Parts: sequence; structure tokens; C-alpha cells
Amino acid sequence: MFGVTILGNNSAVPAHDRHPTAQAVTIAGEVLLLDCGEGTQMQIKNYHVKRSRITRIFISHLHGDHYFGLIGLISSMALINRTTPLHLYGPAPLKELIDLQLSVSDSILPYELIFHPLEGPAVLVQTAKYRIETFPVEHKIPCYGFLIRENHAPRKIDPDLTRQYEVPQAYFEKLQWGADYQTKDGRLLKNEMLTVPGRKNLSYAYCADTLFTDSFLPFIKQVDVLYHESTYLDDFAEQAKNRFHSTAKQAAMIAERAEVGRLLLGHFSSKFKGVQPFEAEARAVFPYTDLSQEGVTYLV
Amino acid sequence: MFGVTILGNNSAVPAHDRHPTAQAVTIAGEVLLLDCGEGTQMQIKNYHVKRSRITRIFISHLHGDHYFGLIGLISSMALINRTTPLHLYGPAPLKELIDLQLSVSDSILPYELIFHPLEGPAVLVQTAKYRIETFPVEHKIPCYGFLIRENHAPRKIDPDLTRQYEVPQAYFEKLQWGADYQTKDGRLLKNEMLTVPGRKNLSYAYCADTLFTDSFLPFIKQVDVLYHESTYLDDFAEQAKNRFHSTAKQAAMIAERAEVGRLLLGHFSSKFKGVQPFEAEARAVFPYTDLSQEGVTYLV
Repeated sequence: MFGVTILGNNSAVPAHDRHPTAQAVTIAGEVLLLDCGEGTQMQIKNYHVKRSRITRIFISHLHGDHYFGLIGLISSMALINRTTPLHLYGPAPLKELIDLQLSVSDSILPYELIFHPLEGPAVLVQTAKYRIETFPVEHKIPCYGFLIRENHAPRKIDPDLTRQYEVPQAYFEKLQWGADYQTKDGRLLKNEMLTVPGRKNLSYAYCADTLFTDSFLPFIKQVDVLYHESTYLDDFAEQAKNRFHSTAKQAAMIAERAEVGRLLLGHFSSKFKGVQPFEAEARAVFPYTDLSQEGVTYLV
Repeated sequence: MFGVTILGNNSAVPAHDRHPTAQAVTIAGEVLLLDCGEGTQMQIKNYHVKRSRITRIFISHLHGDHYFGLIGLISSMALINRTTPLHLYGPAPLKELIDLQLSVSDSILPYELIFHPLEGPAVLVQTAKYRIETFPVEHKIPCYGFLIRENHAPRKIDPDLTRQYEVPQAYFEKLQWGADYQTKDGRLLKNEMLTVPGRKNLSYAYCADTLFTDSFLPFIKQVDVLYHESTYLDDFAEQAKNRFHSTAKQAAMIAERAEVGRLLLGHFSSKFKGVQPFEAEARAVFPYTDLSQEGVTYLV
């Protein structure tokens, strides 16, 4: 199980106390940021996301409402003397932008910033605990979605057996992630002796900004939670199409076709003060729909 | 008389609900922005500063806490279809940065952005109603202060005479700014016949980030309100010096030497949760000192 904390659910111009796009995914003790609109470093603070635990930042595309907060966050990490390396994934020109911003302020980061340009569908990260893939979506400029999947859910410990073999509590996390255990008298206990398989591997797909399209359906098939943008209501379907965005109804159609567990809506246009109608419109097509709300952590 | 609204009074890392530097100067119906830290467009909204009235933006230097909010504001102005030209004053590399950010998002502004690179001391703007000068201060990277002076304060209308000559109310503002008036029967009344001189021309100096130094004293001499940074308390004078910043006591010493009317302190380091001690420290040297508080408009 992991969590997705919504830091911003509005589209381009901040309005109605809604912020530009950013999400914090907390998985296996790490925080992964998906997009980083202006003010993300303040939102992180407001919602008690641990800045020091951010290990990777993913930028879907170079429209400002998805990345203008990145340089501020990177700079603040430098000012508080971060030393842990930070991985940054984004469209290639992002590197030049960051380098230029650092150079005009005569700054050298005290930590390593490792840039990974996005291209085509690809596996970006594969750790013992999770796997992250990227896939292209369809927007005005190159834009990418991200799929986060637990690599294998933690195994369940058998409490009677661990007591019997006197396995110390400090070793439990290792057991959960598949390690074997050597007893005090040197006997090796295979992991399978002490644990049973855990839940299924859960997954979350973030589709950034996109036209209504089936093109990336194979990547999001049967994910547990899908975040799909819904900039407009369906009355504005024409405008949505012209601006390479989607409506709430279209998001719900994608959720249904992809057979996902749950749909989260977001990236609401500033023209809508209240966003409840988005939920109603989408639920008529796909009942397991919720509005993404800032400050709320959704469990996957 | 004009107003300075504080939008951010903190130094580098946002903390304690304080924001990075930005100020809105409202003068002669226009809004001038002094610096534009991350989140300025949200602060503008929070404090009801009219975005559409912003005519000029001044960036003192290219440390992020003074300009990371600029591109967001410029982009939002584009998204809401601004057509009025916008003047931007800042260190030369700012132009390249903005151009690059617009180009990666494939954006063309619907309004003219007129960039004026800062260099040496100079008069930047001279209108009928105000005059703006810039002067170098001493910081780690090139950094500029700004001096805003009413060009001539509005003249005072003589209500008996305007009644006698039946001058319509709609013409009063023109009279206040020096225009003559032609009566219905064609007689020209010189402005001096209908008005008397107003108050003296008031002035505001903003000194951005700077070392404790007398070098720019001639530029801020006898201004009515001086904003001088005080990143630290005097216990940290050594640290202030090393980082090209000032202490509250040093800011007060500058205010005293410059014989200003009033001192505003700001750019407080995140290491200080409460900032009342800054006021006490400065007032011991220069009694007419106040802390700049976010959301407050100080009258000049």
C-alpha cells in the first residue's frame, strides 16, 4: 500500500485557493514528486510532506503550471545543505533551464542532481520495492504519464515462527522484503519458512495533461488508482479538444475502458469555482470516481 | 502619497508562513512590483493587489528568492489574455531565462514584454507622476536598489474658484496634475489660478539584499521611507558579512546616517521564528523603525 498526497489540483492560473499541479507519492519510505507547480515547496510544508525524503522528481511536461516550482525546491534543498543525491526525470530541455538558473545565481548544489531525460515509453526506475514506467500522452507539447507499481508487496510475517526462532524485531522489515534469516546457532532459515506472500502489487497511474485518447490505454490497464485530468466539464468538450485537454466525462470513459479500480479527477480549469459537478458528470459513466482534493492523501 | 504592500518578508527558504521577497508599490493608479519571489502571483491575489494594474516589474538580482515567481506571473498574465505592454527591469541574464522558459513551453505572449537591463546608477522611468532610479548595492552577485519618488505631488484645488468657474469634477484630476482649464466661453485659466502647490514629493527606497555599507547612501538620502534588509540580528554580524547581508542594527545605522523618515525591516532569515527582536534592536539605534509585515500596506 502507498499514498498519493495532492499538493495542487488546478490548471494553469492558480485560483479559488487551488494550486498548480504537484503530487507526492509516499512509497517504501521515500517520497516521489509528480510535477512541481509554483508554490510546491510551500504546499509540501503545509501538508507535512517530508522534504528530506524526496528522492525522485518527475516532470511530465514543460508547461509552467507543472514545473515552475521545481527550481525553488531544488534551491531550498541546497540552502538547507542537502547532500543526498536527487534524481530528476523530465523533458530534455529542463536540464538546460535548471543549469541556466543555477549559473545566473552563481550557485553550486551541495548534492548531486542526476537528470534523466524522458523519451518514448520506458522503465525509469526499478528498485527492490517499486518500479516506475513512463509513457507518452497527447498534449500540445511533448508530455509524459507515469506508472508506479509496487515491485512486490511486503510479505507477511508469521508471528509464531519468528517468536519460536527468536528473530529480533529490527530484522522484520528485511524479512518482509524477502531476506533469509540466520539464527544465533548458525542455522539458515529461508524466507519462505517465516513469511507468506503479501497482497498483490498495487499500482497508480498519473496521466498528466492529455487529450481524450485511447493511445496510452495499454499502460494504465487495470491499475488500482488512475489520476486523469479533467480540465473541463463536457459542455466544453470542443474547447478541451482544441487545448489538448479532457473533460470529466472523457476521463471516466478512459477509466472504464482501462478497467481501473478507482478514478481521481484533477487539473480543474480556473473558470470553475466549484468542482462538485465534475464528480457527478464522471460518476454517471464510472461510479468509482472522486475529486482529488488538495491536502488529502489517497491510498493506493 | 503612495502605498507599499509587502507580499513577502522572508529570506531564501520560505518558513513560518513568511514568503520570499516581493512588494507592490501603488502609485498614480499603477502597480509597480519590486522583486517577485515564488508564490507572488498567489500573494497578489491574497492581498487584493490588482494584477491588471501592474505596469512595471523590477528585479533586484538573480537569487531565486527574488525572482522565481516572475515567470509564473508573466505566464498567468498571458493566459488571461493581457494586451497591455509590461515593462521588466532586471539584470541582463534575466532576458535569456524568460525567453528560454517561454520557448520550451512553445508560448508566445499576447502582450509586449519590454525588457530593460539594469546597469550602474540610472534613471529608469520618468513619467508625469513619478520617477524611478536604480543604484547598485553590494551583494554576492550584481544587485540593485530602487528609488521611487513622486514626480510632483498633486496640486490642491481651490474649491471656491472651481465652483465659481464651473469646472466639472471630471476635470479635477487633470487640474491636480498641472493642466490649465478653458471655460465654456473660451477663457483660458492658468492652473496656478485654480490650484495651490500640494505636499512635498514623497520618496521610497528599496535596498534589496546588501552588505552593511555606506556606498549607496547618496541615493537614499532623506527618503521618506527606507526599506533595508535585516536578514540577521547583530549577534550574527559575522555571518551577515560573510553572506553579504545586514543585521537589524546595521540597517538602523544606515537609516540614521541617511536621515530617512522611517525604516522598514525585512528579508528575515528562516532561522528566526519570531522577528520582534529585530524591531527592538533597530529601534535602539533608530526609533522610527517598523517590521515589514506581509499583507500590510505602508503609506509613503
